Amino acid sequence: MKNKAITSRDVDFAQWYTDVVKAAHLAAYSNVKGCIVIEPNGYALWEKIQSILDQKFKETGHQNVSMPLLIPENLMKKEGELIEGFAPEVAWVTMGGQKKLEERMCIRPTSETLFSDYYSSVVTSYRDLPLKYNQWCNVLRWEKETRPFLRSREFLWQEGHTIHETSEEAEQETRQMLEIYRDFFENVLAIPVITGRKTEKEKFAGAEYTLTVEALMYNGVSLQSGTSHYFGQKFSKAYNISFLNRNNEQAYAYQTSWGTSTRMIGGLIMVHSDDNGLVLPPKVAPKQVAIIPIGNEEEVLKKTDEIFTLLKEAGISSFVMAEERSPGFKFAEAEVNGIPVRIEIGKRDLDKNKITFARRDTREKMEEDATIDVVSYVKQLMEDIQTNLYYRAYERMQSLTYECHNLKEVEEIMKNRPGFVKGMWCGDAACEAKMKEIEGTKSRCILEDEAPIDEHCIVCGKKAKDLVVWGIQY
Amino acid sequence: MKNKAITSRDVDFAQWYTDVVKAAHLAAYSNVKGCIVIEPNGYALWEKIQSILDQKFKETGHQNVSMPLLIPENLMKKEGELIEGFAPEVAWVTMGGQKKLEERMCIRPTSETLFSDYYSSVVTSYRDLPLKYNQWCNVLRWEKETRPFLRSREFLWQEGHTIHETSEEAEQETRQMLEIYRDFFENVLAIPVITGRKTEKEKFAGAEYTLTVEALMYNGVSLQSGTSHYFGQKFSKAYNISFLNRNNEQAYAYQTSWGTSTRMIGGLIMVHSDDNGLVLPPKVAPKQVAIIPIGNEEEVLKKTDEIFTLLKEAGISSFVMAEERSPGFKFAEAEVNGIPVRIEIGKRDLDKNKITFARRDTREKMEEDATIDVVSYVKQLMEDIQTNLYYRAYERMQSLTYECHNLKEVEEIMKNRPGFVKGMWCGDAACEAKMKEIEGTKSRCILEDEAPIDEHCIVCGKKAKDLVVWGIQY
Repeated sequence: MKNKAITSRDVDFAQWYTDVVKAAHLAAYSNVKGCIVIEPNGYALWEKIQSILDQKFKETGHQNVSMPLLIPENLMKKEGELIEGFAPEVAWVTMGGQKKLEERMCIRPTSETLFSDYYSSVVTSYRDLPLKYNQWCNVLRWEKETRPFLRSREFLWQEGHTIHETSEEAEQETRQMLEIYRDFFENVLAIPVITGRKTEKEKFAGAEYTLTVEALMYNGVSLQSGTSHYFGQKFSKAYNISFLNRNNEQAYAYQTSWGTSTRMIGGLIMVHSDDNGLVLPPKVAPKQVAIIPIGNEEEVLKKTDEIFTLLKEAGISSFVMAEERSPGFKFAEAEVNGIPVRIEIGKRDLDKNKITFARRDTREKMEEDATIDVVSYVKQLMEDIQTNLYYRAYERMQSLTYECHNLKEVEEIMKNRPGFVKGMWCGDAACEAKMKEIEGTKSRCILEDEAPIDEHCIVCGKKAKDLVVWGIQY
Repeated sequence: MKNKAITSRDVDFAQWYTDVVKAAHLAAYSNVKGCIVIEPNGYALWEKIQSILDQKFKETGHQNVSMPLLIPENLMKKEGELIEGFAPEVAWVTMGGQKKLEERMCIRPTSETLFSDYYSSVVTSYRDLPLKYNQWCNVLRWEKETRPFLRSREFLWQEGHTIHETSEEAEQETRQMLEIYRDFFENVLAIPVITGRKTEKEKFAGAEYTLTVEALMYNGVSLQSGTSHYFGQKFSKAYNISFLNRNNEQAYAYQTSWGTSTRMIGGLIMVHSDDNGLVLPPKVAPKQVAIIPIGNEEEVLKKTDEIFTLLKEAGISSFVMAEERSPGFKFAEAEVNGIPVRIEIGKRDLDKNKITFARRDTREKMEEDATIDVVSYVKQLMEDIQTNLYYRAYERMQSLTYECHNLKEVEEIMKNRPGFVKGMWCGDAACEAKMKEIEGTKSRCILEDEAPIDEHCIVCGKKAKDLVVWGIQY
């Protein structure tokens, strides 16, 4: 039994994705081209993601701020590489209050320039360092092809920007934030990831290097899910973030930035969901348990109320579906919205001292004694679901990860059953470009801690330098 | 003893305001004209405001969403009055991705148009109603004169937008949200307010009527602090938000919107703060207690730790100022940042079994037994501070509220000791304009529940219709 409004993901993955976004009321297309309306279910999910990540940022000494939305053209251009990278995708404000502006301004595609400008005005001594700021905001990139959550002209994200006294400390920050992202993906979103360093071509415009978290979707396509950049002194020299160091000399700060976005919601859908709609890991589900009374007999309502109160007191987010609709309608509704656990309470069951639990991930139903310790049972069930979702995705990722030694192998894989391809690389941009001719395969990242699998570059056969993971990207 | 970096508020109120914003690290001017950087202390205050208001919105059945930042010109113009009102202050995006746009788009100054467009696409039956959505976001209005928090080109706010089956329900919503704002100002921000209806001239562009929360600053100037609008069917007809009603006929929805912004932070400063910096009511202070060890003797550090742990367990937000700076420096630092309660722990005091508490509002110091129940004591102290701040502001507002019967009285008051002037009005726009010639005095609102104080219009002497509160505005 599948939800009729949802195309099967094995038949048409792209259509299935759009159908789930719509059926679960996560987002709607708007009349503003390339921009979406994030609807209540989608936004509640984003709030949950924000609250968990934000706490991790604060625990590691970061503070939130708010920078302007607009960037004057001159300020945007100061560093050089950044504007070159972003020029094709920024939107320009040229009129304000019915007058042509003397200097046009772009809507922030990212805020390195603004943070750098601000930092340069407040830092004077090494005693002022480090400064570790973050902001939750909207950014705009004029994309041509857009997909809800995955790629839209406007999206919501967080961008952390920090400055440090030494390169060691800044590099440590870059790695720490990557680790926070990896942990969040694996332990909260239940999405297994690989992490590594971007190639020169794929790194962030203006960065010395970019570390990345890469995930694999149900259909074998990769999703860049979070990045952490080390800038060295590039921006601090361009924007003059200088300070008096411990030797009483002027020095430039070392800088990082790191970000994740509403794209994570797209990842959650494409990794866990199925033909019945959204599937959410309990740790990130805004609503964890749906309680469904079947009929309105006094004992049914009493038990419903009792269980709702118990779960609420235990800090489990639950709600009662009390509308006058058929049980089947409500079951489907709870399913399509990805509620991890469903509890069904009916008179006939209660007469036999039974209630029914259903888990969203496997769609199993479990009949249990009505006198069971509901809180412990639900907690255990949610743990099982969280673990199961992770391992299901992990096994899929494993089964779709290949070691290749020549282009023919890559071609066959990317055509028939794409995934992550591990292959050696000489470091030459031409070889990277050659790879792209195969179904748009791009380097995802250089694996820094794994042993080489070959001595020769998978493309040109010359001496290989790095082990790279390649994949088709969203 | 006053903070040297801060001008006295009785000498130069405008400079004092700017000095407090800077000294308390609430915001900094940016190189983007008319836009500010909200710094960690300012943003933490905004997060606290958000969390309290957001909970009230959710408790009353509202859900958060996210609408696009940009509005195509045609969509913006559909209703007519709104664009007329906002045209002088919108910014236009005319270029995207290096191409001139076919249709220019404005950056949202407010989002009635986007919500209306969205609602028209999702509502089909009375069963879909009401829809009660809110968003926390940034908006842009191309102001000429700007002041941090009070009036800036970009600001952060929340805007609620709801649609209903009947006018009664929509009007009830309009009043309910005004009441939530009033309650929040009085009981959380400790700012006494008056509430009423805006005149035709001062109401929101496109609204049938606007209800408002108005506060009085230390210098007698008024601040419009929150508004709640009833739209009737104006937008729903322009944007075709129609549905099949209970009689199976097509009908148009009734609509509201309501908003408050980071301007509240400006109000908090101008109502409570003093020449020593920021003063915050405990209920909205991100950090409520500063614990300051004097010296580093073991017993001092032990007591510091003990008190910090006790307060933390009681859910009181406190922090230890452990830096190697003089006690005087730390006292001033806690003061300028508006921390409501300070606890000073020194060896000499402890030897006499004493610790010292200081309250920020009155700057009193209280020596107490070191064995006192710190949690109860601090809780009581914070309640006293909260109450005292409210009544201090309330008494000031009372002493600056006048009843006037002719323009000469108004002139004298607005010149010498401005405040809220109550005066009767005939309802004629010409009389309202005449009033503005007196130091820029504008109608704040029509008091709906108070008895008339005269039969004649304060300006023209003709038969009066409404009792109006007038004031000089920010």
